[in-house]
Amino acid sequence: VKNVQNRHGVLFEDGQLGPFPMHRFKRIDKPTTLIADNIQRIDSREIAWAKATRGDYGPAVQREISHFFTKYPLSAAQENIVRHLASIQDNEVAAAKAPIPEDPQILSRHIKRLGYFLKADIMGICRLPKSAVYSHDRQGNPIDIDYQYAIVIVMRKEYQTVKASKGYDWISDPVSFQAYQHLSFVAHTIANYIKRLGYPASPQHPPSVVGRYQVLLPPLLLRAGIGEVSRAGIILNPFLGLSFKAAAVLTDLPLVPDKPIDFGLQDFCQHCKICAQMCPGRAIPTGDKVMYNGYETWKLNEQRCASFSILNKKGTICNRCIKVCPWTKPTTWPHNLVRWSVERSSLARRLAIKADQILGPGKANEKEKWWFDLEEVNGVLRIPNTAQQ
Amino acid sequence: VKNVQNRHGVLFEDGQLGPFPMHRFKRIDKPTTLIADNIQRIDSREIAWAKATRGDYGPAVQREISHFFTKYPLSAAQENIVRHLASIQDNEVAAAKAPIPEDPQILSRHIKRLGYFLKADIMGICRLPKSAVYSHDRQGNPIDIDYQYAIVIVMRKEYQTVKASKGYDWISDPVSFQAYQHLSFVAHTIANYIKRLGYPASPQHPPSVVGRYQVLLPPLLLRAGIGEVSRAGIILNPFLGLSFKAAAVLTDLPLVPDKPIDFGLQDFCQHCKICAQMCPGRAIPTGDKVMYNGYETWKLNEQRCASFSILNKKGTICNRCIKVCPWTKPTTWPHNLVRWSVERSSLARRLAIKADQILGPGKANEKEKWWFDLEEVNGVLRIPNTAQQ
Repeated sequence: VKNVQNRHGVLFEDGQLGPFPMHRFKRIDKPTTLIADNIQRIDSREIAWAKATRGDYGPAVQREISHFFTKYPLSAAQENIVRHLASIQDNEVAAAKAPIPEDPQILSRHIKRLGYFLKADIMGICRLPKSAVYSHDRQGNPIDIDYQYAIVIVMRKEYQTVKASKGYDWISDPVSFQAYQHLSFVAHTIANYIKRLGYPASPQHPPSVVGRYQVLLPPLLLRAGIGEVSRAGIILNPFLGLSFKAAAVLTDLPLVPDKPIDFGLQDFCQHCKICAQMCPGRAIPTGDKVMYNGYETWKLNEQRCASFSILNKKGTICNRCIKVCPWTKPTTWPHNLVRWSVERSSLARRLAIKADQILGPGKANEKEKWWFDLEEVNGVLRIPNTAQQ
Repeated sequence: VKNVQNRHGVLFEDGQLGPFPMHRFKRIDKPTTLIADNIQRIDSREIAWAKATRGDYGPAVQREISHFFTKYPLSAAQENIVRHLASIQDNEVAAAKAPIPEDPQILSRHIKRLGYFLKADIMGICRLPKSAVYSHDRQGNPIDIDYQYAIVIVMRKEYQTVKASKGYDWISDPVSFQAYQHLSFVAHTIANYIKRLGYPASPQHPPSVVGRYQVLLPPLLLRAGIGEVSRAGIILNPFLGLSFKAAAVLTDLPLVPDKPIDFGLQDFCQHCKICAQMCPGRAIPTGDKVMYNGYETWKLNEQRCASFSILNKKGTICNRCIKVCPWTKPTTWPHNLVRWSVERSSLARRLAIKADQILGPGKANEKEKWWFDLEEVNGVLRIPNTAQQ
């Protein structure tokens, strides 16, 4: 633990800043999965949700996607708020730089602490890889942005509700939107603040349909040490599992990038196939990793994932993999003890996977269910047929 | 603990729903302070901030109020977000009522649980007293609204930052705005959702300058059992002390009002005068309660409070009373043990007050300071003179 002081009298302890002890992980120079040298930029019109909207996944998916979040009144309400916030007129970068320390270490701690002040769950920083910037936006315009760093903001999904749900019930989309709402106001606030300090900054926040998005987030999460590549094809954090959403602020404020982390996940996911076995859309592979878009990863079948989520008649969207993942557990001491062992020992990994399989992952805690099952059809809310089973 | 089930299969345990055990307090039919029978409605142009803006508190206050939150870059950024959210076009009430249970108990638990899902710290419900509705808005238009209930939403101020600050330094206004930002998106989301269920609802959120406000919040907090009247003239919660901000959603959704609470605060504040002794604006009385606007309360000198806050040269606004209050403490077990005793014993109250006086309340934990001291003057950020002392 190191103390840093500046002329403002700001002290920085080089330890835990936020609610989770991310500082205690072994930091490595390269992620635990391969990254190719020359990665092609992706056109945002080629991601799964854009394809679904365009009709590439068939007419049923195309028809349903237009109201897949408005079909439930809570996600519909949340979407209104995020859409409105995304429409805000951005402020200008101040003409003069503020008299703040130019030490990137002090500025990094400052921005991370600001994120925690705004109740983010995990903050991270990485260099912005050009390859993570989409080549074109949804309208087909080339995206030409150039920032040095990405500040990554992570929000946990509300755990009690995740516990109460099956992962593809009526509350599933509101669970995501709760994180989206919080992320959008935090990303806009941090970007607005940095511009007032005299540095360029751009808020990047989900969801893709109503948010503001010029970058792919998983490559940033991987580089900023938020987690490792998982079998579900997305980044997994040791404390939150898959149960979080992320946003970013791109900036030229001088910062110190974090390094990737290694907590034994590659070996864990290689042997644990719970998410693949329980995926209702059969979209997660049971086999080995492949190289895809320049990244070594288990390759999600995006069409199956998006189609099942959008056509789901028993609820809104699907987060079953997030629900059943053995890492989506609270940070109580027994679970933290397992985390500690699994990080260090391959035998512990085998035992933990076996224990989860025996205990039966993915059970919904029905006693904690607090939402109503409702479905909007032609502008009227009704009780869905599936809710009465 | 009682279980309630409805045809949706929703179970409600009649115990703790949120992060603080508010359910364990003794609930009483009337608040611990008197409320007059016939309370006159207040004109929103007569509250302290409106008077300060109009020049009633002198030209210096009037000049400073126009940029008292833009003078610090973080609160300026936060204000942009809240102002933009307040400008959202409200949705219409759905023509048909949703097929949800009409049991007010189930609906009350549902709405409170929704608030906790959106990460509120405390939720409460009361009947909306007509007297709490302002008679006129800031433009002088009569306010004519009629709702049965007020859903009260409470957000804690970020505790580590409160601990690090003196209460009237540069971070003081951002601490309030962090709560305002979160409250505004939660209030808008809940109101939007209730209207989709087919019931009228109106979001009411601070701050008065940029938020949406047609009601006085303290009378609602008192009735909904969030806390008791304190010496500082505002409502004090047993877990958060004075360190929170609140918003409301007015609605006709059938609900069960909560009752006021009694945790011994009247006797405590009668003897503890720490906030009055440490108030830098000498705005808090050391004497007894009086009747004011229909409420028995210690009477804050609003002009002194607002003037000191607005003219403060050592920071943004003033929350010194919140900082020094013995109740603004974390909910660790030693502090909870003191809470438990103080609620039950007048001797414990005397001892707790003495202990706080000896330990010296209101110290700033300088090691936790993470913000930069900055002041915007004529559009340029500079290091304030006071920061270099």
